[in-house]
Amino acid sequence: MKHMKWWGWGEEGVTFRYNDKPGFGDFIKAAIDIDVTKESAVETSFDSLSIPCSQAPQELRASLQAAVGADNVKDNARDRVVHAYGKGLRDLVRIRSGDVGRLPDLIVYPGSENEVVGIVKAALSANAVVIPFGGGTNISGSLEAPRVERRTVISVDMGRMSSVLEIDEVSRLARVQAGALGPDIERYLNARGWTLGHFPDSFNHSTLGGWVATRSSGMQSDKYGDIADLTRAVRVVTPAGVLATRPVPSSSTGPSVREMILGSEGRLGIITEATVHVHRISQKRQIYGYLFPDWRRSLLAMTAIAESDAAPSVTRVADANETRFSFATKKHERLAGRAKSALSKFYLRRVLHFDLHQMCLGFIGYEGTIEHVNSTKRLVDEIVGRHGGMCAGTGPGELYDRKKFDTPYIRDFLLDRGALADVSETAAPWSQLETLYDGVLSRGRKAFDEIGVRGYLMCHLAHSYHSGACLYFTFAFRPSDKARGLEQYDVVKGAIQQGFIDFGGTLSHHHAVGVEHAPWLSQDISPVGVTMIRSLLDGVDPGHNFNPGKIV
Amino acid sequence: MKHMKWWGWGEEGVTFRYNDKPGFGDFIKAAIDIDVTKESAVETSFDSLSIPCSQAPQELRASLQAAVGADNVKDNARDRVVHAYGKGLRDLVRIRSGDVGRLPDLIVYPGSENEVVGIVKAALSANAVVIPFGGGTNISGSLEAPRVERRTVISVDMGRMSSVLEIDEVSRLARVQAGALGPDIERYLNARGWTLGHFPDSFNHSTLGGWVATRSSGMQSDKYGDIADLTRAVRVVTPAGVLATRPVPSSSTGPSVREMILGSEGRLGIITEATVHVHRISQKRQIYGYLFPDWRRSLLAMTAIAESDAAPSVTRVADANETRFSFATKKHERLAGRAKSALSKFYLRRVLHFDLHQMCLGFIGYEGTIEHVNSTKRLVDEIVGRHGGMCAGTGPGELYDRKKFDTPYIRDFLLDRGALADVSETAAPWSQLETLYDGVLSRGRKAFDEIGVRGYLMCHLAHSYHSGACLYFTFAFRPSDKARGLEQYDVVKGAIQQGFIDFGGTLSHHHAVGVEHAPWLSQDISPVGVTMIRSLLDGVDPGHNFNPGKIV
Repeated sequence: MKHMKWWGWGEEGVTFRYNDKPGFGDFIKAAIDIDVTKESAVETSFDSLSIPCSQAPQELRASLQAAVGADNVKDNARDRVVHAYGKGLRDLVRIRSGDVGRLPDLIVYPGSENEVVGIVKAALSANAVVIPFGGGTNISGSLEAPRVERRTVISVDMGRMSSVLEIDEVSRLARVQAGALGPDIERYLNARGWTLGHFPDSFNHSTLGGWVATRSSGMQSDKYGDIADLTRAVRVVTPAGVLATRPVPSSSTGPSVREMILGSEGRLGIITEATVHVHRISQKRQIYGYLFPDWRRSLLAMTAIAESDAAPSVTRVADANETRFSFATKKHERLAGRAKSALSKFYLRRVLHFDLHQMCLGFIGYEGTIEHVNSTKRLVDEIVGRHGGMCAGTGPGELYDRKKFDTPYIRDFLLDRGALADVSETAAPWSQLETLYDGVLSRGRKAFDEIGVRGYLMCHLAHSYHSGACLYFTFAFRPSDKARGLEQYDVVKGAIQQGFIDFGGTLSHHHAVGVEHAPWLSQDISPVGVTMIRSLLDGVDPGHNFNPGKIV
Repeated sequence: MKHMKWWGWGEEGVTFRYNDKPGFGDFIKAAIDIDVTKESAVETSFDSLSIPCSQAPQELRASLQAAVGADNVKDNARDRVVHAYGKGLRDLVRIRSGDVGRLPDLIVYPGSENEVVGIVKAALSANAVVIPFGGGTNISGSLEAPRVERRTVISVDMGRMSSVLEIDEVSRLARVQAGALGPDIERYLNARGWTLGHFPDSFNHSTLGGWVATRSSGMQSDKYGDIADLTRAVRVVTPAGVLATRPVPSSSTGPSVREMILGSEGRLGIITEATVHVHRISQKRQIYGYLFPDWRRSLLAMTAIAESDAAPSVTRVADANETRFSFATKKHERLAGRAKSALSKFYLRRVLHFDLHQMCLGFIGYEGTIEHVNSTKRLVDEIVGRHGGMCAGTGPGELYDRKKFDTPYIRDFLLDRGALADVSETAAPWSQLETLYDGVLSRGRKAFDEIGVRGYLMCHLAHSYHSGACLYFTFAFRPSDKARGLEQYDVVKGAIQQGFIDFGGTLSHHHAVGVEHAPWLSQDISPVGVTMIRSLLDGVDPGHNFNPGKIV
């Protein structure tokens, strides 16, 4: 089973490189006062980690081995460390500093739903803790055991259950095992002319089960829907037995148990498979870059697109700060490219009267038949034009499409150089987005001031819906007191999250609650909402054996 | 407060008439052996009902009066009888036979959320039972108190809370009070250029709160979505306090409490308001009739339309039995109409080689800009043609649009003449629809044989989704043993519901569970699903004060 780096995002050997990006160093220096040429972090070696012994009692170990086979029960240091955390900023800081947290005692790799049933039975009869593990990409603390947990902790890695089991071509549904990674699914489907169309930033390393458990959203959600819309049925091994819902298109059979599993973060059991919408691969697929004169008009244009008959597959626009960041990650251009850039700047400034410092870069995607793509783009271009923006061709879009999964590598790169960077995202009604944006920016700046750092805060809009959209904030700073980095991180992250709540947003659009967002939950869904979730969780899992401490 | 007839559907004075429908009498005679010219039921007079005394203790009555004002607490016989049942076939048979069931002791009419809070406090401190009441249209037994209930039963009629509170024109959201009836909402919205677009068959008599509590679906759901899709936020007075969720477009904050309220049938509390999607009234709206050579090709055409780029607002097609029923309800035609009909028949039979006995009548609706309507219709017509069908113009569509809310009156008309008629609906994947249809029809016929009646069973498809659709069955028969009518009804209804389960459907697409469908719930969502719902309900309402006995 291949896992991500124990100390950072993605595959071993793959890192972010700045050498071919001439604007990057100056930009980072100006933004957060970091000299990218100097690595400041000493890389912790795996062997220097202090690994406490596995506490699994022999009897439990034996029953797990009986359930999944001896080869699929692990307690080696590397497996335990890889399964200790997700990939939140806090996780990376802790693991790099040698703080391994409450390591799982055993990692088990089931190969079938029956084996999962066996694991759950064994765990419950030993009163052990069970934490399901997909790709390990979670950034909200959903994967770690509580530090104080005294029971045996079992991490259930779903990596062996990674198949697409069946495509129902008439109903356009696929049954997929929970441990299938994004590329596993698309490879299988694409070879047969189909796609799931779910592409979260974590796509390469996250699984269907993880998406369902966290209510994930992909960048083409405008066309395909969030995972909550895509998921028609689930199978889940719960403490009470196997939940199996039917892949019906809609139902009025009481509060939906399928929906209760969405976002359940392992607290109701282990998702073993889901039946999901699939689509025929589109005849045409194209992402175009767009330039808007400022953030306000970007928002107005996106609102108007959502209200129109146009149905693009991707709507995304960065604020001025994120736009400048994007331009700073551009590679060296050859002479022709440089000339074109100079000409574009001239045109934007002199002909369209753009203030280049306020300019916002957007991406809008189109997918479907050629006629659909063409007519949709005509509609969108007209709306964008009405708001002072313009299409910038397919160049930026293709670049975005190629590089879309690489952003998390930049965080590791910055961390190596002493900068803390992370993301917080929300969703709110269209009418609220500008106020929320202004409010969060001002809270963020206040937080930077409070801890005495320069700091950079940027945002993009993505995932348009009928009534609103997601705003995705990214922040970075060099701690003024290196020893208290995480404390300072909490000040900034906390200010942004509280801003979401105070200005009408939700505390997370697609990153789940975990432990990171739990402090704000009752402000988001009201204290009664928390009571409702707690009732459900406590009723199904009275012993709190399933991923305790998450969500509520 | 205006209520529906205590003994049947709709407004006093409005009834189904057959005199102007020349084919109706013969059709009904052939179908279920009833002579429509003879009324067989003796209408029960209200005064002959035996009404037990209200059991409400004086103290509770006083606190309720304090909460909502003395004028808004009722215990007169008519109010109590109107709130005793919904409008299921069983309800009508019982009430017409003088069986009033467990009447509510008090009816309260709150005027605000604060008053609802007062009611709930008073009820809980007296350990009384609370049953929310919207328009009273439910046909699954969701509104009646258990016969054995010994506690005081309070029906909370939401009729005074019927306002649209606010339209957010930018986010296309409206805040609407739970007691607003369909026409209340559309009248207010239409006057300002907006529509909710939710038109269940019960539209004229059902409320937003009822729709949310039962996961309702409207006939234009293909465009506007089911109520579950339309509802962005809810406010609910629960035993644990007021639940207030935010009107965010999407969220990943644990299992969604908004979704737990959808379909909760009063068991989690009293819904006081919801924030729902609204749309600008479309430039053009048109429903066309379509004719298909047979059911199989109708299903194939509908599947193909769902898979295409076309996005009609209504997709509906009746099987041959329901098509014949539709034609039998046609009014007298003048000479020109008769000539046209004869010509049409000739054309269908001789030119298209239709077997008129197998022919299926469909309705497909289009809504949006003129260009959207035209291009969608072109796409749909092409698909229909490919499956041997043809557009029959706007005539049938307009008729359907005008008469769509009248069908329940026919049930009362038949009941007056000794026939029992009711509906059962399901949803299933496209690939399953033909098998399910055949299976349910064969189960229905077997049930008719078992009880020794002729019986009629018909079906239409409506509400298309990505992966499937709703099949809506209507059945009618004259009991072979009049005294055991309801027992015979149970045999037929039970056979159909079990057919849904056995052939891959859900037990209800949009009529909720109540007590009528509860026996099949664990077969639909698996026993663990029932445990999950029970955990939620028991945790939030440990005293079982809220609509006890419903769903599970």
